[in-house]
Amino acid sequence: MTLALYFPTSYPYTVMAMKKFINDPNNLTKELLEGLALAYPKQVKLSGEKIVVRAVPKAKDKVAIVTLGGAGHEPALSGFVGEGMLDASVVGDIFAAPGGPKVLDALRLFKDHPGILLVILNHAGDVMNGNLAFNMAVKEGINVKKILTAEDIAPGLDAPIEDRRGLGGCIPLIKVAGAVAEAGKSLSEVLAVAERFNQTMATLAVTMKTATHPQSGQYISELPDDKMEIGMGQHGEGGGTGPQNILSADETAETIVKKLIAATKLQKGDKAVLIINGSGATTLMEMLIVFRRAHQVLTGTGINVVAGRCDEILTVQEAAGFQMFLAKVDDETQKYYEAPSSTPYWK
Amino acid sequence: MTLALYFPTSYPYTVMAMKKFINDPNNLTKELLEGLALAYPKQVKLSGEKIVVRAVPKAKDKVAIVTLGGAGHEPALSGFVGEGMLDASVVGDIFAAPGGPKVLDALRLFKDHPGILLVILNHAGDVMNGNLAFNMAVKEGINVKKILTAEDIAPGLDAPIEDRRGLGGCIPLIKVAGAVAEAGKSLSEVLAVAERFNQTMATLAVTMKTATHPQSGQYISELPDDKMEIGMGQHGEGGGTGPQNILSADETAETIVKKLIAATKLQKGDKAVLIINGSGATTLMEMLIVFRRAHQVLTGTGINVVAGRCDEILTVQEAAGFQMFLAKVDDETQKYYEAPSSTPYWK
Repeated sequence: MTLALYFPTSYPYTVMAMKKFINDPNNLTKELLEGLALAYPKQVKLSGEKIVVRAVPKAKDKVAIVTLGGAGHEPALSGFVGEGMLDASVVGDIFAAPGGPKVLDALRLFKDHPGILLVILNHAGDVMNGNLAFNMAVKEGINVKKILTAEDIAPGLDAPIEDRRGLGGCIPLIKVAGAVAEAGKSLSEVLAVAERFNQTMATLAVTMKTATHPQSGQYISELPDDKMEIGMGQHGEGGGTGPQNILSADETAETIVKKLIAATKLQKGDKAVLIINGSGATTLMEMLIVFRRAHQVLTGTGINVVAGRCDEILTVQEAAGFQMFLAKVDDETQKYYEAPSSTPYWK
Repeated sequence: MTLALYFPTSYPYTVMAMKKFINDPNNLTKELLEGLALAYPKQVKLSGEKIVVRAVPKAKDKVAIVTLGGAGHEPALSGFVGEGMLDASVVGDIFAAPGGPKVLDALRLFKDHPGILLVILNHAGDVMNGNLAFNMAVKEGINVKKILTAEDIAPGLDAPIEDRRGLGGCIPLIKVAGAVAEAGKSLSEVLAVAERFNQTMATLAVTMKTATHPQSGQYISELPDDKMEIGMGQHGEGGGTGPQNILSADETAETIVKKLIAATKLQKGDKAVLIINGSGATTLMEMLIVFRRAHQVLTGTGINVVAGRCDEILTVQEAAGFQMFLAKVDDETQKYYEAPSSTPYWK
């Protein structure tokens, strides 16, 4: 998840008094990962610098699930390392993808496994470095396949893949893929189920207040005091519908869930997973109120919400807003979504 | 958790443009609890208005754990209803305790159980209404005991109980008490273990940015842009050391954890639980960095951190800051703290 590529240097940044509990801004990733390993030593540990792996690795008879991404979105992605989800998370600097060689280091850890699924979010830096590592691993004879998440519907349902960002949907996808891997399935089977889930999921974000970049102290986007924006990316990227007047929770929920229903092609009688993922400062109080209305709309349409969640799974520093995630599930993907897991931040 | 009693009406409130996803401010509690029940139907349901109970009540052969408190602190307290923790949470309006008769209604639900432990946080409204319900229940012949949490050390280690607020420590205490109850122990035994844990726990908060009250849109306290405050209460109440210059994450962690070590009388070789509870807008990135340093200080003192947690368990709307919680545990309280549970928000 890279920031730099999205903003022209002429972007009118505003410098504010940043109020964050940090030390040297250059050590953020290192220190937060140390904290993660100290807080959850039964589930995760560090393997070298900026690679988070399971504290108790599974036997080598299972497919490994590996992902990569910038820091600053905690608990994503490293907070989901553990049984039933990720085997490794490769972490970059704040909002910056880790380098390809670092990702390759992580893939090599699992070269004796029956296969590796590399989950890449559709952001330029992640794709570039993920592909670099993937290609080098293939050359080394490592059995790795990749899956690209790009479920943001902000650019429109017919937008080309390049315009569709990978948002928080990577995490439920990792939940599904991780459960298939944990069940001892082959790499082809893990990929097939994960890709089926991938094709049925959609996310749309709304931003109410922007966040500050913890290294520069600068706002990562601009949003007037009396406006919100639907479709803003998770680093403040554009592509949304532009600033608009603030809607009520119910109006916001209705607007977004209707777009997601259209995107996922959910029909009466279908089964769905609904997640409200808080961006940071938006309270759980608000998320629950929004969830309530989205659930009512879905149920009113005859769609059966079989699993729900209101939580912060992929944040944007202290931004206010949320991502609403909707996916159609079948009996198999539902079973894997609901399978037991043990990671620091998947409740 | 009541707000009203702490602020004189002359308090210099500032009105800001509140940016929250809400509908009618008078329906916040009702709507958020509906959302909770819809999001987590396997774990919780509503029993009448503003009483959250387990979706699948346990057989009547166990002690029930009941608590009360104002809304606006989500996931506290209702997010911890479920197996191994609460049997019921009685919810008031935003930052306002529920009325005594409502709490009595909840206690009556469990009158056929072998006993009820009523957990009351030390805030004037909670104490008044909790005691009212307690006394009425006793008159009705219900076997109920109460426990008061007041672990805030901001007013000093020798401060009278009236000055010590109940902060987020109620939640690990409910975790311990809930596990003892789930194990089928008597009310006296549940109370004894919970009280032992209660006596060994301490919390100290730090606030970086204040929050807005979601019904009035007013700031709940005042804090200059370049200051932080250690010891501010969870509704912006005073009692802290006053605004001070912003410290680094490490300096903040060291300052607070040293006070908590003194308060808990933890010694070399002792076992401890350490929790960083985010207030709302403070990122998990920051919380992990703070946890890391507090853990280092504890370990450096020879104290064994046997369980850790960085999470939002009791929030203050979109305030930036955190509460650091430290408790000494013995083999028995550790076992109960770590026992399995299934609630929406205890990971």
